[in-house]
Amino acid sequence: MNIPRETSGTNENDAGKRVPADRGLSAVLLWSCPDRKGLVAKISQFLFERGGNIIDLDEHVDRSDNSFFLRVAWDMRGFSVPPDKLDDTVAPLAKEYAARWTIRLNDRKRRLAIFVSRLGHCLQEILWRLELGEFEAEIPVIVSNHADLRPISERYGIPFHVFPITKENKDQVEAEQLELLRRENVDTIVLARYMQILSPRFVRNYPERIVNIHHSFLPAFAGANPYRKAFERGVKIIGATSHYVTDVLDEGPIIEQDIVRISHRDSLDDLIRKGRDLERLVLARGVRLHLEDRVLVHGRKTVVFG
Amino acid sequence: MNIPRETSGTNENDAGKRVPADRGLSAVLLWSCPDRKGLVAKISQFLFERGGNIIDLDEHVDRSDNSFFLRVAWDMRGFSVPPDKLDDTVAPLAKEYAARWTIRLNDRKRRLAIFVSRLGHCLQEILWRLELGEFEAEIPVIVSNHADLRPISERYGIPFHVFPITKENKDQVEAEQLELLRRENVDTIVLARYMQILSPRFVRNYPERIVNIHHSFLPAFAGANPYRKAFERGVKIIGATSHYVTDVLDEGPIIEQDIVRISHRDSLDDLIRKGRDLERLVLARGVRLHLEDRVLVHGRKTVVFG
Amino acid sequence: MNIPRETSGTNENDAGKRVPADRGLSAVLLWSCPDRKGLVAKISQFLFERGGNIIDLDEHVDRSDNSFFLRVAWDMRGFSVPPDKLDDTVAPLAKEYAARWTIRLNDRKRRLAIFVSRLGHCLQEILWRLELGEFEAEIPVIVSNHADLRPISERYGIPFHVFPITKENKDQVEAEQLELLRRENVDTIVLARYMQILSPRFVRNYPERIVNIHHSFLPAFAGANPYRKAFERGVKIIGATSHYVTDVLDEGPIIEQDIVRISHRDSLDDLIRKGRDLERLVLARGVRLHLEDRVLVHGRKTVVFG
Amino acid sequence: MNIPRETSGTNENDAGKRVPADRGLSAVLLWSCPDRKGLVAKISQFLFERGGNIIDLDEHVDRSDNSFFLRVAWDMRGFSVPPDKLDDTVAPLAKEYAARWTIRLNDRKRRLAIFVSRLGHCLQEILWRLELGEFEAEIPVIVSNHADLRPISERYGIPFHVFPITKENKDQVEAEQLELLRRENVDTIVLARYMQILSPRFVRNYPERIVNIHHSFLPAFAGANPYRKAFERGVKIIGATSHYVTDVLDEGPIIEQDIVRISHRDSLDDLIRKGRDLERLVLARGVRLHLEDRVLVHGRKTVVFG
Repeated sequence: MNIPRETSGTNENDAGKRVPADRGLSAVLLWSCPDRKGLVAKISQFLFERGGNIIDLDEHVDRSDNSFFLRVAWDMRGFSVPPDKLDDTVAPLAKEYAARWTIRLNDRKRRLAIFVSRLGHCLQEILWRLELGEFEAEIPVIVSNHADLRPISERYGIPFHVFPITKENKDQVEAEQLELLRRENVDTIVLARYMQILSPRFVRNYPERIVNIHHSFLPAFAGANPYRKAFERGVKIIGATSHYVTDVLDEGPIIEQDIVRISHRDSLDDLIRKGRDLERLVLARGVRLHLEDRVLVHGRKTVVFG
Repeated sequence: MNIPRETSGTNENDAGKRVPADRGLSAVLLWSCPDRKGLVAKISQFLFERGGNIIDLDEHVDRSDNSFFLRVAWDMRGFSVPPDKLDDTVAPLAKEYAARWTIRLNDRKRRLAIFVSRLGHCLQEILWRLELGEFEAEIPVIVSNHADLRPISERYGIPFHVFPITKENKDQVEAEQLELLRRENVDTIVLARYMQILSPRFVRNYPERIVNIHHSFLPAFAGANPYRKAFERGVKIIGATSHYVTDVLDEGPIIEQDIVRISHRDSLDDLIRKGRDLERLVLARGVRLHLEDRVLVHGRKTVVFG
Repeated sequence: MNIPRETSGTNENDAGKRVPADRGLSAVLLWSCPDRKGLVAKISQFLFERGGNIIDLDEHVDRSDNSFFLRVAWDMRGFSVPPDKLDDTVAPLAKEYAARWTIRLNDRKRRLAIFVSRLGHCLQEILWRLELGEFEAEIPVIVSNHADLRPISERYGIPFHVFPITKENKDQVEAEQLELLRRENVDTIVLARYMQILSPRFVRNYPERIVNIHHSFLPAFAGANPYRKAFERGVKIIGATSHYVTDVLDEGPIIEQDIVRISHRDSLDDLIRKGRDLERLVLARGVRLHLEDRVLVHGRKTVVFG
Repeated sequence: MNIPRETSGTNENDAGKRVPADRGLSAVLLWSCPDRKGLVAKISQFLFERGGNIIDLDEHVDRSDNSFFLRVAWDMRGFSVPPDKLDDTVAPLAKEYAARWTIRLNDRKRRLAIFVSRLGHCLQEILWRLELGEFEAEIPVIVSNHADLRPISERYGIPFHVFPITKENKDQVEAEQLELLRRENVDTIVLARYMQILSPRFVRNYPERIVNIHHSFLPAFAGANPYRKAFERGVKIIGATSHYVTDVLDEGPIIEQDIVRISHRDSLDDLIRKGRDLERLVLARGVRLHLEDRVLVHGRKTVVFG
């Protein structure tokens, strides 16, 4: 379905003529290493010498441990290094500075798998934004431990795989899921209110590439039933958190959080309803930041070049 | 489609068993009149004498002009006045106090018409919330001056009527639209980014029953192209406003507003994207407040018992 | 010092002529009891029969345990019960409904003691708002375990008492403090970043009358060093919480919370600086709500009629 | 008065031992010019070659008109150019790129004049933050058209100059004020609820160096009596705006804005009270951003490297 979208090229009064935003081929380098003098000069010079026009550069130095973080995006038109030689060209520089790094071209769409259970609002939100063109990604597969949300996936024509999970078959199911993800060449997993805990073995296959939404303002109310806990504690604000999944439940690096005010008038059902809107927004923002290579993990924390 | 929804009766860890929220028959009285001593006593006594258990009562006195506003909801179980005699029973009291008033029973679902043009996000949001059970309403008809959003209405099985509008046929079209609304017994109109200005004659048919979303923080950037204006002015925050439609463009009583922070990094397209999320939320909240009889109009302003 | 304050009677363009807001004598009843039919009718009728004009009425029923909460303010001009007979008149009614209740007249200013340690921003904020006329209260005494903030108290001419505290003398000091508070007829204690933990014995003397500010978004980061913990966890939002003090550290009923967004660019010192603004606002709001009799405690939670 | 301040070197539990934050000599370059390839490389290389370690670098390209903006801070320890030769060294580079630019060393404290009328809250806030060490600045003079706030200035030991203003003497007074500012070597003027309109001639002497607080969410409610206008319009959110002063009233480039939610329960006096908190925060943030050289003006807009 081709839904019109308002853009800067649109007359807002009666919008609809979609403007193709042809931004051409560009690359993004994410880089972190121990801080040293002249790092920005070195990297920007490196790009300039090869004809790269910097579109966006953001850097950060964490003074507490002298770590250096950089995100730089440049125009590939006129860049003297062809796309398939990019990695080889940057590798020696990265080695010299002991850097962790990735480069991604904007024409290589990320392939997402969405994991869900029975609640559809986060799935719905992601599919809707994908349709609107907000995410530079493809979704080849939706995975669930229940069949309930198959109708939503069918609306959008995305294959829906049900893996019923019991205590006994969990290892086996995870192996099958990993096999499916490999077959579908999945790059990133989004847990859109998926109510199973992934094993460390599973997580290890997608380090810093599993984005989860937790329906509380972490670290408050980690674990099960956060809305109930928030209701019983009588907090005046509830929140939601999107974060990378690590071995420790609800302890992964936080990408994004947001909150909404509540009062004594709000029942537990009201918290759930208000929280639903938060979850949708906070997960969508977290996924978008990840897809645009704006997140660098730094121990338990993230650097987000928003 | 029956999408599971998390409720207080749900085990959040693997939600889905929907709990029927059987709250029984109840009534809501909205009342405004000049302030007088003993008004709350009078009305609450009136209900008590007839066996009504008050579920919720909220009152407000505007000291600037001594106006009194009240919203009271009560349980109809055990109430001695039958539903079809409610209006007749309250009328004499209301007359005594020169009150404007309405009573609505919670089993009388409001019938909404949604008006749209080419942008689908607000329509999508409303249909999605309706499906989730957030709105106590029915949507018998969607009206548009373009055909673009027909596919969304088809997803939800709602009749979609296209009325192409030109300067010449506007009067005629409005007459046909009013006829359609009458036929469908429509109670309230939601303008979900409908890009035509309704004539005073049209508006007069639905006083305080047309809810619009304006994509700015009114009164800033009224009229056309608010995002472009906000971008050019260099504001650091943008907003959205839901309000009742009156004869004067973007001047109707405001129901709800919200904002989002922006920065110099945001292009006009970013404003449009961020604003889209705001519009969805602010319109949905405005519609919900209206549907739950929580809004009383007071001149150019509203009293919102949220 | 008489600092001009902008009011509705002020020409904002060159403000300063202070308008005495003579609102006359009024009373506030705070009431909670098991829910029963006709409670609002009963109480509003009770006031009406005695000539009381209701200025403001707010009620709430907690459906989870059928508790009823009410705050009603009325004009004492023309009320047939004299101020000194109020309690005796309401007592029988309260007994009938097994209610917890208080009545306060707006001419009986509450007497506050402020407890501080070495950080002055919360103290400064409270004294400044008192001076501006925002709090209906008197502050006869400031108590500290350090002498650092004496200069601030001297600016405002308020007696400052230093009680150095060690593990050994704590019981003795608390006894002396209680004696001082009794002598000064103190009604409510505000802990404005007071870094000592009060003993249960001390707290028992001021049940629901000790307001504390905790510099985190409780229940996250309870206990010591919340900013450091927030910094190390990498949260994207920090908060502050004002709450009543109970026997359990940082577990008392929450009155008010607020948050501020942070990013990787914020050092621990930035968190402390941004948090300082939050603490000031959240404590001030909590104190104001308490002073205006807008807070009812309900187990671990509060009902706040804001 | 030396008020203890919590810092990262403080034990939060009983804070007070002030940690001298000796960050050494550093410089900040603010730079804007037409965009060209290699600008970041050029400038960072320029600093690196002279031994400058970059502490912080932020850049932005406005695609709508291809303007380039940069803020870079570097450590002067080990930098081969002495402080007094900085301008001469950068000038040729700036000329080559047709750049507007400034360099400031962190040991050159800005000298602020505060202009006030009769309302003291913004003045109070600025002096209090200065005392806490939040602003790298000196305040040699406070200017007012009324004597009311002299006591506040005396508390802080700052000279207070009263210039009564009438229609007739305005030109003469402004000339005297400018003479005073010149004598005191004032760099930046803060209008802390100063209720006089400065003439274009006056403003021309401090281009992009007069920071004003306007008590509304601009462009809504520009001009006089914004709270009254907001109250009468029935908005659900009010705001405050700090901006540079230009020839056109309330039209200068916006530095910072924030908002607070209101409801029908809020009287005009409540708006004024709630707005007061906003004004304090928004002005303080605007002043801080200006003092830290984080604001670049771009036509009617600002680039804020926050």
